Amino acid sequence: MQKWRDNVRAVVPYVPGEQPNQPRMIKLNTNENPYPPSPRVEEALWQMDAQKLRLYPDPAAAELTEALARRYEVAPEQVFVGVGSDDVLALSFLTFFNGGKPILFPDITYSFYDVWAGLYRIPYCTRPLDEEFRLAEADYFGENGGIVLANPNAPTGLAMPLEGIRRILDHNRDVIVIVDEAYIDFGGESAVSLIPEYDNLLVVQTFSKSRSLAGVRIGFALGQPELICCLRDVKYSFNSYTMNAAAIKLGTAAVEDEAYFRETTGKIIATRERTKEELSKLGFLFPDSSSNFIFATHPQLPARKLFEALREEHIYVRYFDRPRIDSYLRITIGTDQEMDIFLAFVRDYAAKQNGS
Amino acid sequence: MQKWRDNVRAVVPYVPGEQPNQPRMIKLNTNENPYPPSPRVEEALWQMDAQKLRLYPDPAAAELTEALARRYEVAPEQVFVGVGSDDVLALSFLTFFNGGKPILFPDITYSFYDVWAGLYRIPYCTRPLDEEFRLAEADYFGENGGIVLANPNAPTGLAMPLEGIRRILDHNRDVIVIVDEAYIDFGGESAVSLIPEYDNLLVVQTFSKSRSLAGVRIGFALGQPELICCLRDVKYSFNSYTMNAAAIKLGTAAVEDEAYFRETTGKIIATRERTKEELSKLGFLFPDSSSNFIFATHPQLPARKLFEALREEHIYVRYFDRPRIDSYLRITIGTDQEMDIFLAFVRDYAAKQNGS
Repeated sequence: MQKWRDNVRAVVPYVPGEQPNQPRMIKLNTNENPYPPSPRVEEALWQMDAQKLRLYPDPAAAELTEALARRYEVAPEQVFVGVGSDDVLALSFLTFFNGGKPILFPDITYSFYDVWAGLYRIPYCTRPLDEEFRLAEADYFGENGGIVLANPNAPTGLAMPLEGIRRILDHNRDVIVIVDEAYIDFGGESAVSLIPEYDNLLVVQTFSKSRSLAGVRIGFALGQPELICCLRDVKYSFNSYTMNAAAIKLGTAAVEDEAYFRETTGKIIATRERTKEELSKLGFLFPDSSSNFIFATHPQLPARKLFEALREEHIYVRYFDRPRIDSYLRITIGTDQEMDIFLAFVRDYAAKQNGS
Repeated sequence: MQKWRDNVRAVVPYVPGEQPNQPRMIKLNTNENPYPPSPRVEEALWQMDAQKLRLYPDPAAAELTEALARRYEVAPEQVFVGVGSDDVLALSFLTFFNGGKPILFPDITYSFYDVWAGLYRIPYCTRPLDEEFRLAEADYFGENGGIVLANPNAPTGLAMPLEGIRRILDHNRDVIVIVDEAYIDFGGESAVSLIPEYDNLLVVQTFSKSRSLAGVRIGFALGQPELICCLRDVKYSFNSYTMNAAAIKLGTAAVEDEAYFRETTGKIIATRERTKEELSKLGFLFPDSSSNFIFATHPQLPARKLFEALREEHIYVRYFDRPRIDSYLRITIGTDQEMDIFLAFVRDYAAKQNGS
């Protein structure tokens, strides 16, 4: 019938994660920050000049790039910004994983790595995590076309010590190692400190979690200037203007409020530690999270059923119907009050299950 | 030395177009709108809730999609939005030009078509425009893997009659024909009216020119629901959240102010027609522009020299150092006052050249 369909790219149709919008819901399903962005973001919004929106934004997003350079104590030439860390990571795959050898990443990790590899026809091999979701460094010591590791890992929340990252870098001086630190501000050790030593290290972070700006879509990469230059060359070669004027202004305001950043990440960490204790008391098991979520399983409570029971109460968590992790729930850390409501429901639910 | 370089994607390093920022400059170089966006955009900016930026934006950008559907009298399932028309066009190439046969476009056209073809390894053939920059329809009647045409064309400004687009569509029912209408609101006949008849037609437009929102990065595609569904499937398969909360809000406000849109595009058209007359009097030659720029050459005034002389006065126009068009300047239509200053300078410059 429609012959043009022969030329259409075949993909597995994908439905984006549920973004429920109930008035009194408790939303613990997409790892958003429960606290609003810095008050400086609101000020920056008020100060935006609508008249100037007729002009193209600065393609280099210099204002934001320079604010990040100051914050991370690197040169502006060491910073690349993009439309969320998905954009930055996808572009990094396109730029750096262009050899014929397979790239490596764990079997349980961020679900877009294999998607981007497929998109750009990059061969890849996954390396299995152990039963406790730990990574075996030696799995990454052989020949490969590049490595991408989420640290802390998603959806497990488990962080890898910096010395492990260093050993992987030492064994892979001839390929690019991308460390995806979307959740690093909640307790892991950042690899940014290793950048001066390794010209093959690219660290990617996001404003969507620790900086409460998921709605503004900002991600960034840090690395030695040569690496960042490669990224910029590829990006400019096909799309000059991706960061809009609002993202540049609001992102800059967020990164300049270090005190607020420390306060809110500190609160989330404290709530997470308390939630861990409560979940343990209820019999849950989980890898020790260094992120803003807990990946938990329960020997008696099937994950899918608990997920559905929570959902009926408009408490949303994330369930992955995938091999090895289908008995787990990923629970974002909300406010103390939100976690109390969540825990109260689970306590009640567990009691009922035991009773029945 | 650095073996990782073997895996880096090779591109021709590209420097994005000059975005000068002089206090009293006259900026006629990137086809921006000289008028600010609709006052409703400013109101929408004031009404934005900074607190909510902690949440991911709606991945479907439903508010904006629905506003566009109402404006263009199509169903929401016929609208796809992206981060500027560059993003929409690049994704359309990736989605629809996936066969083995070469896609077709003119030799003189928007400079990113061959770049995206290269990026996604899509074979392509260019078809030469005639000496007056007109397209020969029959060049597009043979077998091919898809067609992309800018109408009005860039950087010539010349529009093609709708019947010509229809004949090309009639000869190409088995491939996708993309009509890039970045400049359509300044006088061309839009192919949107052909969508009900052709399931292989995709029309792409932008908010950067006629809606004065280059700074917010919004583009969109219209087509039959099946075509839009293919685009969404591919997009969601690798990046769920690209349109930020500001783009959704401000774009919606802009598209809902039809009166302002008609007023400002009308003013630009009037200024363009007056500028054409003045340029003709000065001896310039140009294809009859239906866009917000004029692509002009002068038998006695070398384009590059005039470009440089204007630049020294902080009057910025665009010069392309490329075969067949290196004797032309692309002059964006500014306000009447800006065009008067531009024309006065050129008049004076021409007199001096004649005198010397």
